[in-house]
Amino acid sequence: MEFSAPDHRYMARALQLARRGLYTTTPNPRVGCVIVREDRIIAEGWHEHAGGPHAEINALGACREQPAGATVYVSLEPCSHTGRTPPCSQALVDARVGRVVAAVGDPNPAVSGRGLQQLEAAGIATACGLLDGPAEQLNRGFFKRMREGLPFVTAKLAMSLDGRTALASGESRWITSGAARQDVHRLRAQSCAILTGSGTVLADDPQLTARPNGALAARQPLRVILDSQLRLAPTAALLHQPGQTLVFTTAAADASKQAQLEQAGAEVVRLQATDRTERLHTALHWLAHERGINEVMVEAGAMLNGSLLQAGLTDELVVYMAPLLLGPDARAALQLAGIEQMQQRLNLKMIDSRRVGQDLRLTYCPCVTAAGNAD
Amino acid sequence: MEFSAPDHRYMARALQLARRGLYTTTPNPRVGCVIVREDRIIAEGWHEHAGGPHAEINALGACREQPAGATVYVSLEPCSHTGRTPPCSQALVDARVGRVVAAVGDPNPAVSGRGLQQLEAAGIATACGLLDGPAEQLNRGFFKRMREGLPFVTAKLAMSLDGRTALASGESRWITSGAARQDVHRLRAQSCAILTGSGTVLADDPQLTARPNGALAARQPLRVILDSQLRLAPTAALLHQPGQTLVFTTAAADASKQAQLEQAGAEVVRLQATDRTERLHTALHWLAHERGINEVMVEAGAMLNGSLLQAGLTDELVVYMAPLLLGPDARAALQLAGIEQMQQRLNLKMIDSRRVGQDLRLTYCPCVTAAGNAD
Repeated sequence: MEFSAPDHRYMARALQLARRGLYTTTPNPRVGCVIVREDRIIAEGWHEHAGGPHAEINALGACREQPAGATVYVSLEPCSHTGRTPPCSQALVDARVGRVVAAVGDPNPAVSGRGLQQLEAAGIATACGLLDGPAEQLNRGFFKRMREGLPFVTAKLAMSLDGRTALASGESRWITSGAARQDVHRLRAQSCAILTGSGTVLADDPQLTARPNGALAARQPLRVILDSQLRLAPTAALLHQPGQTLVFTTAAADASKQAQLEQAGAEVVRLQATDRTERLHTALHWLAHERGINEVMVEAGAMLNGSLLQAGLTDELVVYMAPLLLGPDARAALQLAGIEQMQQRLNLKMIDSRRVGQDLRLTYCPCVTAAGNAD
Repeated sequence: MEFSAPDHRYMARALQLARRGLYTTTPNPRVGCVIVREDRIIAEGWHEHAGGPHAEINALGACREQPAGATVYVSLEPCSHTGRTPPCSQALVDARVGRVVAAVGDPNPAVSGRGLQQLEAAGIATACGLLDGPAEQLNRGFFKRMREGLPFVTAKLAMSLDGRTALASGESRWITSGAARQDVHRLRAQSCAILTGSGTVLADDPQLTARPNGALAARQPLRVILDSQLRLAPTAALLHQPGQTLVFTTAAADASKQAQLEQAGAEVVRLQATDRTERLHTALHWLAHERGINEVMVEAGAMLNGSLLQAGLTDELVVYMAPLLLGPDARAALQLAGIEQMQQRLNLKMIDSRRVGQDLRLTYCPCVTAAGNAD
């Protein structure tokens, strides 16, 4: 498929509009739309929140002149099914647009190509695959959930140059700078859920809210606590913050403790699982399937971070590295089991490296294959 | 002191010339010189190696026209004393140059201002302090040795993202990539000496030579081994490489072992010192005072690296960080003693961060004050 320079320019604008939904569209994808006639933009639209109109509908409604014959640039294939709103493909057909260019096909099995097919069937020219990389990246959580039934998992670590998160005493406030913590709030605000373990909650009593500019974000991510023995107290700070808290526990957990947590506002879900890895997988699958969670941010201790990584459930590692040394008696950032030979090491790929305040923010993804980097 | 734009341009060129001596001038500083008449460069020179002519002499000898009345830009104050070569200040007076601009004063107590004074006394205009920062940086080892009687110490670490240099088994080859190891050879070639401990030599049997482009550098840094008990074997690989090896030991060390090492080509020096910190300080002072060592690169284990850092003897930390995880059972990169509270942590300042191959190279200097970075 060949695309022109104007095609690229308008799709880049559609992606820019899509990003406006970065903090609000969950569980829906972020989508932007631009309508163009005779090399002029006659309308723009973007999807703001689930239940509200899709990007195409917003753009059609904003048209300053008739959209008949116009070209529509949309960062995700128009939907073909009636969800909370009517199908966008039909609206585009009714508007008698001339051509529809989608950045990427909708991975939703209920759409997946049918949106473009319906347009083609109505005699509208379609094209797909323009800036598909950035379009998919913007909705990587949505794509992963649709394709694999699991959310995209980002693990955040804050550590010293020598890989320590806290002193032996547990003292950890604050290793990283205010600028790094501010950046973390921005990541939280983008996430659908924040995952941690009950040990971290008991140790630090965090609020786990998103406060990206010092103030609470309008939409708070779901707080998810893994708590097999229901050790969480009903007085825990995070139970008394805006937004919802969900506690995963096991079938054997104490019923009266569950009632106490529920009374404090938490939802408690019992998972059937034989081992730790299966429990982690089940919990993430539950979040994707039952709550439409696209993006999970993990802010946890060394054990949970290590288990998720070694289970292959972590998609991305964001490390805030402070310019200081705590020494080998301090607590390690990651508990990884059974690395006795070099070929068992966990290989990563660096995606990004930048300064945030006086700290470094390093972004890695785990390598799927166990290829070494020796030479 | 006000300097013009041409002044800046010519001094920048002098510094560029000075850098040509990066690998060769030890124990002398790297110095470049530019001679300018009527806004034209009429000669350039730089110092290549100790015993050879200084930058000013090389530039005077290269003049394409008479230097009388010309302006001389030199990246370090001209010397005023007879060392291995006659004083440069006299040569500049004899050449009847009109003006001499130095980037920075010579920290050598035998010069330190007298070079410029002699020029002034002969009626030559002088100025000093143009691009003094970069000029001093280029010779930071020389400046430190002249001012403090100690070499500039750079500690190199190669480690995983989680701060590990080797598996529990000791297996460590190769954590970092070929590009990073290549970069290390370049640093070695710039250094006057490479310092390590006998434990590292016994474990890895390294050659500790500088092979910056895969081939041995013409000038090899002095290999320095701290070996209090003379555990080093006469068959150690590093004793049989081009260049010299020096072994620091204690007064109590075995005389026959010393004889064996000397027979294998090593120089053995016994240091009087009561404790580890004093021994480290004494060794570094000896290297500066007895051998004119400006720059020491430390390639050592966790113990020696930690001791040097905590003794305040490390000036710079160069960390090659590989994109992999080895887990907390693996060996820590730095042994730091007695950090029990956050205010005891070792604060660093990041100087530089860049990619080298697939690794990150992070450069830090230790903060002299124990100021926290919490906020």
